[in-house]
Amino acid sequence: MTVTKYPESETDVLIIGAGPAGLMAAYWMARYGVKARIVDKRAEKVMLGHADGLVPRTLELFDSCGFNHRVRNEGVAAVISTYWGLNEEGKLVRQEHSGENTESRMPFVHTLLGQGRLEQFILDSIHENSSIKVERGVVAEGLSFNELDQEDHSAYPITIQLRTLNSEKPVNGETHAQNGPIKLENGIVNRQPSDESNGVPPQIQREEKVEIVKARYLLACDGARSWTRTQMGLPMEGSSTEYVWGVADVVPISNFPDIRRLAMVENAAGSILIVPRERNLMRLYVPMPKGQDTQTPDAENGTTNGRRDKSTFTPDDLRKMVQAILSPWDFDFKICEWFSAYGVGQRVASTLSRENRVFLAGDAAHSHSPKIGMGMNMSLQDGFNLGWKLALVAQGAADPSILNTYNAERLPLAKMLVEYDRQISSQFTKDENASEDIQKTDARTIHQEFEDFYEGRKAFYPASNLVHKLSRPRPGEKFPVRKLLNQARLDTRWTTNILESDGRFRLVVLAGDIRFPMQKDRVDQLGSVLPSILNRYIAPISQFDGPINTLTIHSSPWDEVEYHDFPEVLRPFDEVMGWAYDRIWSERACTYDSECEGKAYEKWGVDLVRGAVAIIRPDQYVGWVGELEDTAGMTKYFDQILRKAPTACNGNAETD
Amino acid sequence: MTVTKYPESETDVLIIGAGPAGLMAAYWMARYGVKARIVDKRAEKVMLGHADGLVPRTLELFDSCGFNHRVRNEGVAAVISTYWGLNEEGKLVRQEHSGENTESRMPFVHTLLGQGRLEQFILDSIHENSSIKVERGVVAEGLSFNELDQEDHSAYPITIQLRTLNSEKPVNGETHAQNGPIKLENGIVNRQPSDESNGVPPQIQREEKVEIVKARYLLACDGARSWTRTQMGLPMEGSSTEYVWGVADVVPISNFPDIRRLAMVENAAGSILIVPRERNLMRLYVPMPKGQDTQTPDAENGTTNGRRDKSTFTPDDLRKMVQAILSPWDFDFKICEWFSAYGVGQRVASTLSRENRVFLAGDAAHSHSPKIGMGMNMSLQDGFNLGWKLALVAQGAADPSILNTYNAERLPLAKMLVEYDRQISSQFTKDENASEDIQKTDARTIHQEFEDFYEGRKAFYPASNLVHKLSRPRPGEKFPVRKLLNQARLDTRWTTNILESDGRFRLVVLAGDIRFPMQKDRVDQLGSVLPSILNRYIAPISQFDGPINTLTIHSSPWDEVEYHDFPEVLRPFDEVMGWAYDRIWSERACTYDSECEGKAYEKWGVDLVRGAVAIIRPDQYVGWVGELEDTAGMTKYFDQILRKAPTACNGNAETD
Repeated sequence: MTVTKYPESETDVLIIGAGPAGLMAAYWMARYGVKARIVDKRAEKVMLGHADGLVPRTLELFDSCGFNHRVRNEGVAAVISTYWGLNEEGKLVRQEHSGENTESRMPFVHTLLGQGRLEQFILDSIHENSSIKVERGVVAEGLSFNELDQEDHSAYPITIQLRTLNSEKPVNGETHAQNGPIKLENGIVNRQPSDESNGVPPQIQREEKVEIVKARYLLACDGARSWTRTQMGLPMEGSSTEYVWGVADVVPISNFPDIRRLAMVENAAGSILIVPRERNLMRLYVPMPKGQDTQTPDAENGTTNGRRDKSTFTPDDLRKMVQAILSPWDFDFKICEWFSAYGVGQRVASTLSRENRVFLAGDAAHSHSPKIGMGMNMSLQDGFNLGWKLALVAQGAADPSILNTYNAERLPLAKMLVEYDRQISSQFTKDENASEDIQKTDARTIHQEFEDFYEGRKAFYPASNLVHKLSRPRPGEKFPVRKLLNQARLDTRWTTNILESDGRFRLVVLAGDIRFPMQKDRVDQLGSVLPSILNRYIAPISQFDGPINTLTIHSSPWDEVEYHDFPEVLRPFDEVMGWAYDRIWSERACTYDSECEGKAYEKWGVDLVRGAVAIIRPDQYVGWVGELEDTAGMTKYFDQILRKAPTACNGNAETD
Repeated sequence: MTVTKYPESETDVLIIGAGPAGLMAAYWMARYGVKARIVDKRAEKVMLGHADGLVPRTLELFDSCGFNHRVRNEGVAAVISTYWGLNEEGKLVRQEHSGENTESRMPFVHTLLGQGRLEQFILDSIHENSSIKVERGVVAEGLSFNELDQEDHSAYPITIQLRTLNSEKPVNGETHAQNGPIKLENGIVNRQPSDESNGVPPQIQREEKVEIVKARYLLACDGARSWTRTQMGLPMEGSSTEYVWGVADVVPISNFPDIRRLAMVENAAGSILIVPRERNLMRLYVPMPKGQDTQTPDAENGTTNGRRDKSTFTPDDLRKMVQAILSPWDFDFKICEWFSAYGVGQRVASTLSRENRVFLAGDAAHSHSPKIGMGMNMSLQDGFNLGWKLALVAQGAADPSILNTYNAERLPLAKMLVEYDRQISSQFTKDENASEDIQKTDARTIHQEFEDFYEGRKAFYPASNLVHKLSRPRPGEKFPVRKLLNQARLDTRWTTNILESDGRFRLVVLAGDIRFPMQKDRVDQLGSVLPSILNRYIAPISQFDGPINTLTIHSSPWDEVEYHDFPEVLRPFDEVMGWAYDRIWSERACTYDSECEGKAYEKWGVDLVRGAVAIIRPDQYVGWVGELEDTAGMTKYFDQILRKAPTACNGNAETD
């Protein structure tokens, strides 16, 4: 890139792409107050179509961000799924249904809602917490990376040229995505969702301009055909097998009994996946028959990884295919809100980071079919996993080595995702090239095999300076969600909501049953030592005193102990706001809230009397677990990650 | 009122006062598309303070309006309440707590949230459904009622003169209400809630203007000192006993154990009521000691029904009183968001309506103390009860005689409210004039006596053309809330949410267990007759075909019957939107949602196999109950209320 006369500026973090991955990372920048910019080449945010599946783990994250109630209000929960196939008489029948015995419970169950709404919720939260705005209609067109500056994390090794487009020149980078209702022959369109306008207002004239931005960190969240990834020369690896799928959001007119349920239908005419959606919509996935799946090569990277030429596929084609498969039941639609056809191979980047300065997240890091409903979840979780770590480092509050864990934690999951998708896709399309194992296995078996991954019960995060593998609750996994009773207020709340994603580590004191004097002594002893740990490190967020917050969950009945029985460090005092009443909770069941079932300690594998201490990372994954007395272990955990405050008092905290 | 040269216009419904009662009535005008205006003399909507208690029944109404999730997200649920008093050693101790065994269950439990937020939720809903806007800074200053026009419901018997004030002249009608944070000596104020600005922007200059409005119906929702009520000469009746209370919203700094719980504290120094609130606030009610409760007479109606002179009462006075009562515990605050002192006698209007053209609702109809937390609920429910009836009549779809039921249904409840408040207030202030009965009774006993009323389990609505007293579910009472499983989608929803407050009567077909062929025959037979009932009446709402909608709740397991097993009239077909999948539900329990407990039929007292038919009014109260065969009864119920469509087909429906 040549040096030009364009205006130059600096930013700590530049995010390219304002889809789920980029927005979720931007959420953290907003919460930590990081100097960051987020740009997107499209002039308008996604309104219709695209991804729509949310797994329980993602809803838990949303709860910690404070907007899961909006998802519950608008989305469709789909727990039961049904399987349809031909019986011995060649008749299409419902063969099985599953899901009743899932471990997932309301409000954290598989939920369907269009991507545009979720992006709106994240945008609203970014807006509430910061002045960061998505800059739309802004294209990156030049990128250089200065190898010399990599080790110096205060340097700006990334130089990027951005072009702000005149809004009257819409960017049509995704030629086959329909970002608006499709008018059918009778002119009927479905109503638009109530998204705020979130783009460049078409009526506003703006000057096209070019600028140079220098950044300390760059996030490539610009999709499967990531320009940024290509510029950085980061290769994708994986199968070249390409399945082409027709996808549509329609309002179905059908007497097929499971047209409003999550259903897989398969017979001689083909197979389809039916997904219920908000606003009377349904999402349809139909694999294209062999021979009809001609593709237009992608101009940018020479592969066919991308969308199919729309001219060979219309909503009418899709209608006919579904009619054939669902026969003898009727199927039709008058409203098609969005449709697309695409073929995506299963591919994963060989690494998610370059020198811990440039990172790939979301579809830029892993491409696969949309059928298992995991893509948006993976993207959101990528951005969530990377964002807080990067923010901590950008604020100078954490050691840059924690950035290594992004690749270590997310790349294995990306590979697992792609393998899951490969198996399901092969099963769906009866691929003759698939291995014999896959051909013998049916979709149900594959889903069962990947269930822990899919439901988000297990993340399989490996040991690192952020994850010390010890005991239970299991470090590297999420903190299992339970509803708890607040000691001071006696209201109930989910742990996900209590563990608000505000950027702080949580030192969770599982205080056990303090009705036993010996146990109360242990808690008091911990309380006398804790201040020296809490005050030891630099505060990355201006509104908080430090990077660590405590949360106490005891196992005594609420009416046999008092809030003020706990050491003051666990219920800190502020001279204006008084005591912090949201810090002490009981794990006991609550009679007036059937969701507050008690037995949280049992679920977590913690002794009811003696308790334990768990360190929960800002993304709600367990980092460390130990006894109440192991303050040395707690200090060691944080010392490996966080920078000490200049005035840090070592107090009673021992380091080794 | 003299005839002037002021511009004249007409409206069907004019609502004076945009508090809870007026807004709730306006909600219905918005849903029905009635030509209506709503004016308020204040330049700005309530932002802080005022009422804050929501009983379960109100939350059910909000759920039917579609915004209860916002209340849950922001409000504080307070189920447990505690009682503190002196023990034998003269020490202040917690003597008892209650509430664990309440019949109320999440999400419909007693919840606290400031009035300003609720008004915002209703305003947002009105905005989504209509172009009705609250006109603020508009004062009514002349009113005449033409007796001759009363019987002709197409006439405009009400003439009113409205003055739109220049926004720079704020109306200070409520001199002692603080509509903004109070700056204390150290200059600290609490953050403002995120309400949209909902007033006359102070920077906008507007011309003061006067206009004449002719209205068919007038709603007086202008508070305890209602100008409209006075103009109409509608008297208030009741005790002249006046208690003066100090009220404040503060962020407490206190080590009193129950400072974040619903608590009543009583000792020699006095008594206080502690109410937990959103945003770390607490609401305090303190009865003023005798002798300090001097009042300024109300200029408008010569009573002291209104606020006390603020100059005799400050937050510092309140602080000292609470400190004395809570001693030996500490109590202080740095933030006081709102405070007021007022004395309100227990008074009820002798009638809620004049000739069914002018109606009183909310505080204009009943004044009482705020301590039992029912005032805003009664106001909301008044507006809710009146609104749909008035809208139906204004649209020409219902017989004006249904307006009689407003007074018949709400006046007895207003009297019950005031009696409840009188008993509680006397108990609180140890009124020497109170009857011996009351002095002997304690607050707990009084609360228990009124519990059915308070919790909203019973409304005690008498028989009328809207309520036919028959059997169970009990006409005149609400339809008991249960969570149901959707037959087509298999998702779960509360009956309150399914019975959306969209203005239509619901013909609820409790279809029983249609696995029994005889029962299926009964349902099919009903299905063949129903169209003639559904198509018999004028449609009051343009977007719907008629004023009656069906809802089917069966008792079969979802996987043993199909959606299409039910007659098509119960799952109507639209050629664009397909079949209506949200009309058929199962009452069975659902494994993945602990709130979906099943046994709805048992709760409602309906036979599991044979079922029943219930007619639910637009406000979710049961109007009629009968057997599946009693189509004559159904027709008779509707014929007494609704106007027949000119093209009405009598079909098989019999009238008698």
